[in-house]
Amino acid sequence: MNYDRILAARTSRIKASAIRELLKLAANPDLISLGGGLPSPESFPLDLVMELTEKVINKYGSAALQYDTTEGFTPLRKALVEYINAKGIDAGLENIYITSGSQGFLDAIGKLLITPGDYVAVEGPTYLAALQAFNAYEVHYAQMQVDKEGVIPESMEEIIQSYPVKFVYTVPTFQNPSGKTIGVQRREKIAEIILKHDVLLIEDDPYSALRYKGEELPTIKSMAPDNVIYASTFSKIFAPGLRIGFFVAPEKLGRWLVLIKQGVDLNTCTFTQALATEYLTGGYVSKQVQKNINLYRPKLETMLKELEDNFPKDFKWCEPDGGMFLWVEGPEGMDMEKVYKRAIEKGVGFVPGTFFFPNPGDGIETMRLNFTNIAEEQIKQAIKILASVVEEEMKITSIN
Amino acid sequence: MNYDRILAARTSRIKASAIRELLKLAANPDLISLGGGLPSPESFPLDLVMELTEKVINKYGSAALQYDTTEGFTPLRKALVEYINAKGIDAGLENIYITSGSQGFLDAIGKLLITPGDYVAVEGPTYLAALQAFNAYEVHYAQMQVDKEGVIPESMEEIIQSYPVKFVYTVPTFQNPSGKTIGVQRREKIAEIILKHDVLLIEDDPYSALRYKGEELPTIKSMAPDNVIYASTFSKIFAPGLRIGFFVAPEKLGRWLVLIKQGVDLNTCTFTQALATEYLTGGYVSKQVQKNINLYRPKLETMLKELEDNFPKDFKWCEPDGGMFLWVEGPEGMDMEKVYKRAIEKGVGFVPGTFFFPNPGDGIETMRLNFTNIAEEQIKQAIKILASVVEEEMKITSIN
Repeated sequence: MNYDRILAARTSRIKASAIRELLKLAANPDLISLGGGLPSPESFPLDLVMELTEKVINKYGSAALQYDTTEGFTPLRKALVEYINAKGIDAGLENIYITSGSQGFLDAIGKLLITPGDYVAVEGPTYLAALQAFNAYEVHYAQMQVDKEGVIPESMEEIIQSYPVKFVYTVPTFQNPSGKTIGVQRREKIAEIILKHDVLLIEDDPYSALRYKGEELPTIKSMAPDNVIYASTFSKIFAPGLRIGFFVAPEKLGRWLVLIKQGVDLNTCTFTQALATEYLTGGYVSKQVQKNINLYRPKLETMLKELEDNFPKDFKWCEPDGGMFLWVEGPEGMDMEKVYKRAIEKGVGFVPGTFFFPNPGDGIETMRLNFTNIAEEQIKQAIKILASVVEEEMKITSIN
Repeated sequence: MNYDRILAARTSRIKASAIRELLKLAANPDLISLGGGLPSPESFPLDLVMELTEKVINKYGSAALQYDTTEGFTPLRKALVEYINAKGIDAGLENIYITSGSQGFLDAIGKLLITPGDYVAVEGPTYLAALQAFNAYEVHYAQMQVDKEGVIPESMEEIIQSYPVKFVYTVPTFQNPSGKTIGVQRREKIAEIILKHDVLLIEDDPYSALRYKGEELPTIKSMAPDNVIYASTFSKIFAPGLRIGFFVAPEKLGRWLVLIKQGVDLNTCTFTQALATEYLTGGYVSKQVQKNINLYRPKLETMLKELEDNFPKDFKWCEPDGGMFLWVEGPEGMDMEKVYKRAIEKGVGFVPGTFFFPNPGDGIETMRLNFTNIAEEQIKQAIKILASVVEEEMKITSIN
């Protein structure tokens, strides 16, 4: 039968995208990939999972294999109250809910708030999977300007005053894709702005535990609790394959999000929620986070040094204090999609930065490099190859 | 802040429903509940889960804890090809995809196909969580008539001719809530109708493995492969807390559903998909299914006998060959919401049948009874109590 004629209107926003077509080129298994956003498989505590499974079976028995409440596995939510309070966020059980990965939260908040044609304020660039989640609800984006310290508060305020935004979406710490972090003073300014205009802000924070230097920053949530939903995940502090995300919200919004989520997945995987509970209450987080930091910090340092030593002078990049990504900006006129195709032929993959911008065509001179999922030796090789490809492209297009 | 003013238009269809308010009354832990739709916790193979976890860790290592493809864990999809072909459905890897519970499929198909105001044809009564999933996409329902053998094909054809339905949704075997099964000849007639009118049909089949007597029936999917998506789950053949559903679709629709699902959950829980793979390939299904059948068949027989012995003569109920539910119809004028409130006071819970109808007010004289999640002694007690409550209600409202 002809399936096209029965598709919903919203699917025009979900068409197989250019990025997917482009990333298919990277399917070669011999490729050195700086493209994905994966934690290193070395980081996963395999033996611990065996041990935790035994604990889960003994402690929760059949409850770990049964349907559970949409709100989340109660022992996990209770354990998260403590974890969240330690982050300086004042929250009780009625504020904390589990989602199927943080993607489950992004889908739910889009579904709860976006009527087709509504505006959402996002950073340019922003997290690609958030755009994917919101696109399905036929959203418009209002793009906030950023500098090296992330979103510029004045730009946020201007956007809020110019567009009827349903909410502001930000990844304030070690942003994906840019690696940038919003400093304390800006966070305070942002809290002031959303309170002044009574706007809701989504603070998406998957990466803050992966801090390689500097001090932990207070969350925006702690500065404007009624106007912020804080979302995070076990993907970077335990393992992404468990698909456990969580969010902290004003109770009324939390209850709504649970109603929305019920129609989407009934409940998040009970078994892996029970594993996450034992992981959290067993005190494994800090040890695991330290292991990840020890694993990733040298990779970041190696990549920064290789960029410094090999890339042309008119390239700029961030020097993040944590996270999983470096953001590289070439000189004006540089087309990173062309660089990408050439690099793939030479055996190196990355993601052209333009795909992270809500407005098509923006950021054509940028690239996102992941450093967590490959060995240091490969980082050295890959950056040297990328540097030569970039130089070649500059010659061809007569930049400089 | 005032959160109501930022809600999306669709939330008017997802308001805290009457059923939720009503079911809150059943929160008393001493209640004998015939209300839920839970498998018996006794049925879960706890020791096997330990064994399978060890296999998963040894065989897949860190891949079981990593992000995975949206399509599903490839070894599981491969194992399902064989499982599905054995059911008489011709399907390859390109037709089989994993979802986060079968609820994940219901959400995805609604999101892919329903534009606000579109029609979907459903049985009256139908699966409540399907209504919940589709409601969020602002659907209209066209209700097909049923008799004791499930949906009446002529009614289906009339609906298809009278409304521009996007798809037909049916649970043909041991339906939730009615326990009814569509026979072979009707299935053939239904396949003919959807082919004739070139309409898509969703065949939701979570229960067919729980057959206590009679022969397995061919799927509608096998009779009209291009016009049917077949959906099922591991919830009744392994455990619901793993949240593993799957569907079999024409490749083009499968690809679309994967694009939709990507924005919702990135991928289904990798770890429990790996457990399900080892469960399926290890040959545990038939033993586990037999265990479930041995566990549930006597419960069903007990409940039927108790109804026969205790309920007033003008009550009717189905005698299903399998599944988890009995459907009881009282005489005209019977209000099962009133019976429900009275029963709760006496310590017995069930679900009033009216909630399973798309049109409010339909089926007010019906009730759904679950028999899988309580002991036989409790079934005896509960049905006797229900019978007395029902008789009392008949006296008060002067029925007969």
